[in-house]
Amino acid sequence: MNIILKNMRWLALSLITTGSFANAGPVDDSSIDVQPAPNGIEIPAHYKDWKLISSSMRNDKHSLRVVLGNPIAIEAVRKHQTNPWPNGAILAKLVWHVSQLSSWPQATVPGEFEQAEFMIKNAQKYSRTGGWGYARWMGMEQKPYGHDKNFSSECLACHAEVSEHDYVFTVPAQLP
Amino acid sequence: MNIILKNMRWLALSLITTGSFANAGPVDDSSIDVQPAPNGIEIPAHYKDWKLISSSMRNDKHSLRVVLGNPIAIEAVRKHQTNPWPNGAILAKLVWHVSQLSSWPQATVPGEFEQAEFMIKNAQKYSRTGGWGYARWMGMEQKPYGHDKNFSSECLACHAEVSEHDYVFTVPAQLP
Repeated sequence: MNIILKNMRWLALSLITTGSFANAGPVDDSSIDVQPAPNGIEIPAHYKDWKLISSSMRNDKHSLRVVLGNPIAIEAVRKHQTNPWPNGAILAKLVWHVSQLSSWPQATVPGEFEQAEFMIKNAQKYSRTGGWGYARWMGMEQKPYGHDKNFSSECLACHAEVSEHDYVFTVPAQLP
Repeated sequence: MNIILKNMRWLALSLITTGSFANAGPVDDSSIDVQPAPNGIEIPAHYKDWKLISSSMRNDKHSLRVVLGNPIAIEAVRKHQTNPWPNGAILAKLVWHVSQLSSWPQATVPGEFEQAEFMIKNAQKYSRTGGWGYARWMGMEQKPYGHDKNFSSECLACHAEVSEHDYVFTVPAQLP
């Protein structure tokens, strides 16, 4: 028994010292009952726990956005290997309608939650849409976007603009 | 040996199924050589791996901001227990000067990295500054901000405005 405990303590210590718990904490489990998108893509689990890639404000849409990445995407960002992004990378864009902070009116802040959008990289599986699977869920109720499985032609119509950047508009934010 | 492996496999499986690895991936280790702030506060390790709380755009400062929280802060956000925030909570505000996305000029995006600011909650230790320790590191070189240990009176001068919200301007963004 002692030797088992000793080994488990070693494993736990290894996990802690390698930083695997650096971002532990309560896990988002809100995606459990969300319906899949019309093209069959399921909402990625725990996406609100992912790490930061960038942020933006769309002046034409009056919305604030934050882009998070799954572990494969974050590894690509930190290694500066995002053109092309690796298979398995997922980008999550969270979008809010803008609001003003009542205590500091010069600050534009997230108001009502509008949607969560995803790009899932798989060069083979999604070869017909530039190597990315697209999906979007609307509002706090996370209603799947699109009438049928071809809705992502609408996504691609804009993203084709940045085909030279692997169809991704987001440039990872500069960080120390 | 078999029983040890079996137990370690059980531990690993438990960690995975409880979601402790949901946000694993490459860990930020860029804070190792950063000098402490003049009030003695050290830059929190791995802060770039923390989870999202909110975002903002300061129109008066022409900057985009993202606020991340350590695990204690995120737990407080998800339980809606942020007034007051619990001891041990740390808020990290990352600030960039605004830029325009060349491929989509309607989008304001992070340009040059300006600073990382922190609020560290400890009602006893920081009782003289409203229960929060303040620190800021400037630019990509993460130079400590402030001439002497009293620099945080400058922080408090503005944050006193929101003393009824435990001195925190940030309202956690609405999320599904």
